[in-house]
Amino acid sequence: MKFSTHTEASSPAQTEVALIVGGGPGISASCARLLAANGFQVAIAARSASKPVLLELAQHPNIHCYACDASNAAEVEQLFATVAADLGDPSLVIHNIDGRSAGIFRKGVGEADSSLLLDTLVNSALSAFNVAQQAVRSMRGRDLPDSGHRGTVLFTNASAALKGFAKSAAFAMACQAKTGLAQSMARELMPEGIHVAQVIIDAAIGVPQADGNRKHWAAGLTQDDNMADPDEIAQVYLQLHRQHRSTWAFEVALRPWNEKW
Amino acid sequence: MKFSTHTEASSPAQTEVALIVGGGPGISASCARLLAANGFQVAIAARSASKPVLLELAQHPNIHCYACDASNAAEVEQLFATVAADLGDPSLVIHNIDGRSAGIFRKGVGEADSSLLLDTLVNSALSAFNVAQQAVRSMRGRDLPDSGHRGTVLFTNASAALKGFAKSAAFAMACQAKTGLAQSMARELMPEGIHVAQVIIDAAIGVPQADGNRKHWAAGLTQDDNMADPDEIAQVYLQLHRQHRSTWAFEVALRPWNEKW
Amino acid sequence: MKFSTHTEASSPAQTEVALIVGGGPGISASCARLLAANGFQVAIAARSASKPVLLELAQHPNIHCYACDASNAAEVEQLFATVAADLGDPSLVIHNIDGRSAGIFRKGVGEADSSLLLDTLVNSALSAFNVAQQAVRSMRGRDLPDSGHRGTVLFTNASAALKGFAKSAAFAMACQAKTGLAQSMARELMPEGIHVAQVIIDAAIGVPQADGNRKHWAAGLTQDDNMADPDEIAQVYLQLHRQHRSTWAFEVALRPWNEKW
Amino acid sequence: MKFSTHTEASSPAQTEVALIVGGGPGISASCARLLAANGFQVAIAARSASKPVLLELAQHPNIHCYACDASNAAEVEQLFATVAADLGDPSLVIHNIDGRSAGIFRKGVGEADSSLLLDTLVNSALSAFNVAQQAVRSMRGRDLPDSGHRGTVLFTNASAALKGFAKSAAFAMACQAKTGLAQSMARELMPEGIHVAQVIIDAAIGVPQADGNRKHWAAGLTQDDNMADPDEIAQVYLQLHRQHRSTWAFEVALRPWNEKW
Repeated sequence: MKFSTHTEASSPAQTEVALIVGGGPGISASCARLLAANGFQVAIAARSASKPVLLELAQHPNIHCYACDASNAAEVEQLFATVAADLGDPSLVIHNIDGRSAGIFRKGVGEADSSLLLDTLVNSALSAFNVAQQAVRSMRGRDLPDSGHRGTVLFTNASAALKGFAKSAAFAMACQAKTGLAQSMARELMPEGIHVAQVIIDAAIGVPQADGNRKHWAAGLTQDDNMADPDEIAQVYLQLHRQHRSTWAFEVALRPWNEKW
Repeated sequence: MKFSTHTEASSPAQTEVALIVGGGPGISASCARLLAANGFQVAIAARSASKPVLLELAQHPNIHCYACDASNAAEVEQLFATVAADLGDPSLVIHNIDGRSAGIFRKGVGEADSSLLLDTLVNSALSAFNVAQQAVRSMRGRDLPDSGHRGTVLFTNASAALKGFAKSAAFAMACQAKTGLAQSMARELMPEGIHVAQVIIDAAIGVPQADGNRKHWAAGLTQDDNMADPDEIAQVYLQLHRQHRSTWAFEVALRPWNEKW
Repeated sequence: MKFSTHTEASSPAQTEVALIVGGGPGISASCARLLAANGFQVAIAARSASKPVLLELAQHPNIHCYACDASNAAEVEQLFATVAADLGDPSLVIHNIDGRSAGIFRKGVGEADSSLLLDTLVNSALSAFNVAQQAVRSMRGRDLPDSGHRGTVLFTNASAALKGFAKSAAFAMACQAKTGLAQSMARELMPEGIHVAQVIIDAAIGVPQADGNRKHWAAGLTQDDNMADPDEIAQVYLQLHRQHRSTWAFEVALRPWNEKW
Repeated sequence: MKFSTHTEASSPAQTEVALIVGGGPGISASCARLLAANGFQVAIAARSASKPVLLELAQHPNIHCYACDASNAAEVEQLFATVAADLGDPSLVIHNIDGRSAGIFRKGVGEADSSLLLDTLVNSALSAFNVAQQAVRSMRGRDLPDSGHRGTVLFTNASAALKGFAKSAAFAMACQAKTGLAQSMARELMPEGIHVAQVIIDAAIGVPQADGNRKHWAAGLTQDDNMADPDEIAQVYLQLHRQHRSTWAFEVALRPWNEKW
C-alpha cells in the first residue's frame, strides 16, 4: 500500500463521530466545541447529563449529551450502543475523567481511607479500561479505511503519571495505572490501525470565567499564568487524531512556560 | 547529628522483626530464610497459612506464619497488631503479592473481563496500600533510633512496571499503580526516616526443584538461565534495608545476564 | 496579562523566519517546504550548500541555502548574523543533524574508534549546542511579543535517545547528550518565553523516490510501511512552534503504527 | 549449567584486582579502602599520581596509584597494560570522573563557552568510553569462570543523568552521554558475562573532615545531613560487583533521606 496523503487521512468522506467520556468545563468542553467546529458529531457523557456545562454544550446542534457512570462496564457498553445508533460509531474516543475522591485529597499514606483509595482507582483507572474496551470493540468492527487508521483512543492524564508526589498516593496510583493501560493498548492496538495516546497535563487547567479571567477548576484561584488553557489543549487532541499512521505519537506532556518540572 | 557508622545502622541492639506479606515459594520464602539466618524474627502472611511452602517455613524457629487477605484493610490492621503482640513491631515490611487474576492472563483489551481487572487492581495495588499504611502507622509510633532510620518498606514489582506489554493491560495497570504508591510514599516518608523502595524483577523467577534444577513458577519451564534466583534477590532486599539513610536507593531493577530489555 | 488567543499566537503580523541547520532530503527538506508554504522565509544550512537537495530547494522563492559547519562555533555565529541580515532574526530554529561517523556504525564498545566517537559527539551534540546558543542570543535580543512567546528551538533526536542499543554506544551517547541539552534549555529558557522541544523519530525515515515509493535513507530499502513520512513529521514541528505558551510540549516521540517498542 | 551459589560467585580462588579511574577524596578513595579491606589488589589512577589523597591511599599495601589522562585513549590502553603487568587483569573497573570544566559551572546556554563544553564532554564521556573499551577488551580475553561472570564495569553518574537542570547544559550533556554509553554496553556485554551498571549519586558527597564533620566537596559546606556518605556508596559498588549473573542491576540511584526529587 502507498502512503496515503495527509489530506486524505484528515478528510474522510463521511462525518466523523467523537465520543468524550467525562463532562467537565475544562478539557471536555473545549474538545467538544473544537470537534463540533471541525465538523464532527460529538457525543459527550457524564454521570449526570444535567450538569450546567452539558446543558450549555447541548445548545450546539452537533453536540449531544449522555448520562453514563463509566466505572460500570455495562453502562459503558450501553453508551457505545446508543451513540452508534444515534450518531454512528465513533472514530475518536476521549477518556477525560479525573476520578479522585474528594475525601482522599492531600491525605498521607498513614491517613488515607482504603475504601476511598479503591473508589479513586475505580472511578479513574477502571473507567478508563471500560471506555477503552468498548472503543476497541467498536473500532475493530469496522473495515480498515485506505488511511490504515481505524480510529483514535486518547486518555487525559496528570503530572502524577510522571511522578508520585507526597500525600498523593491514591492519585499517583490511579494516574500511573492509566499509563499502564495506555502503554499496553498502544503496543497491542497500533499494529491493528488504532492510534492510542495519552496527553499529560502537567499544570492546573484554567477555565475561562465571565469576567474574562481564567480560574483554576479546583482551587478557585484566579490568575492568568501557570495554568493551561483548555482550548489550546483541545488543539493537541485533534492534531493527535489527525496524525498519519506512519508518525503516531504515544504521549505528549503539556505544561505552561513558567511551570517548575 | 553525626553520621552513624554502617555497623551501628545494621546491628541494632535488639532483635529486628520482619513482616513479609505474600507467601509464594520464590522471593517470599527466600527472604524469610535469609532474614531468619541473619537474626530476624520473621512473620510471613498469606491468604492461607496452610500452604505447603508456609508449613515448611514454619519449621524454622524464627519464622512464623499468619493468615491474612491483604486486600482487606481490616485484616491487615489485625495482622500488624498480632505480629506486634507476638514478635514486636516490624522494622522491615515486604509486600510481595503478584495479584494477577488467572482469568485475565494474556487477554487483550477487547477480551479482558472488567471485573477480573478490578480483582487484579484490588489484590495487587490495594493490598500494597493496605500493607504500606499499617507499616507507616507502626513505624511512626516508635522513637527515632540514633541511625535516623525508623524502618524499611519494600515492594516487589515486575517488568510491567517499566513497560506495558501488549495483551497485559491489567497487570501493567496494577504494577504501575504500585510504582505510583511507592514513589509517593518515598517522597512523603523518607524525610520521616522511613526507607521506601521497590525491587523490579525483570525476569521469571526460577524456584529450586528437588532435582537441583530451577523451575519457572508459572510456566513449568525447567531451565537454568534467564531466570532470576530468588535467593540472590533476597540479598538485595536485605542490602536495601541496611542502607544508611544518607544513601537510600528507591528502585532497583534486577534481570538475568541474557535478558532482552 | 490575559491569555492571547490561538489565532493571535500563530498569525504574527510580520513574516516569520525559520532557520534549519542540517540539509538532508528527509526532515530538513520537508520542513523547509512546509514552512515556506506557510509563509515563512526559510534559511537552510548544511556543510555544503551545493548538495543536490539544497539546489532543488533553492528553486523555491522563500527558501535560502547557506553553507555552515555547525560543529564550529564561529561559523554558526556567522550563519546567524548572515541570516539576520538577509531575512531577519529567526523565530524558529531547527537542529536536524544526525552526526554519526560512518566508520562507527554498528561497532561494539571493544571495536569502536575513540576518535570517531569524539567526531560523532562533536558533529551531533556540540553542533546542537552551538546552534542553540546562537538561537538563544538572537531570541533574547528581541522584544517580548504579546503572545509571550519569543521563539522556538527544536531538536530532532532518534530512538537511541530513549534507549541505548547494543553496538551503538557512540550514537546513544550523542543522542542522550542532545536530550540533556534540550532538557536543560527547556528549564532555563521556557520561563523567558523561548519554547524548547525535541522530536524523537523512533523509526527509519522514508524519503519519497521518483517512482512514488519511499526509501530508507541509509539502507536503500523500498517499502511503504514501518517508515516515518518526513512530510508528516514536518507538520509536528510546525504545530510545536504554534503552541500557545500555556501548553508547551517538551518532547514528542513519533513512530509508525507497526514499530516494535 | 547449574546456578552457582552466591558464595562461589563472590569468593574466587585468586586475588581480585580492581581498577578505579578518577582519584577524588570521595567515592574513589572510599572504594579503594573498602576493596582493599575486602582482599582486592586496588589500582587507582588520576591525572596526577601525586594528589594528596593518592599519596595517602598509597600507604596501604594493597592500593597502588597510577597517573593517566583518561581522555587520551592511548594513555588508557597503557594504564591497563601496566596494571595487568603489575597486579593482573582487573575484574572490577570503576569510572569515577566528574569532568566538569570549572569555567562552565552554572553558565546558561547563552553564556557557556563552546570549547569548555567540548572539554567537559571529552573529560567525562569520552574518558568513560576509553576506560570501558579497555575493560571490555581485557575481560573478553579471559576464560569464562564457572560463575559465568567475567567482570564488572561501573560508572558513577550524577543527578543530571536523570534530569537536565537549568544553567547546567554541559553537565547534563556529559552525564546523559554516559548513560547512553552504559545502556548500550549493558545490552551488548551482559550476554557475554560482563556486568555493566551505573550508580547515580543524586546528592552532594560529604567528604569526612578532620573535625569529624563532613564537607561538600565543591561548595565548602559543612553539614551532616543531605549529603551522601562515600563509604556507604562504596558498599553499593561492591554489592553490585558481587551480584550473581541471574540478578544483575543496571542502575541504582542513591539519595539522602531528606533530598528533594
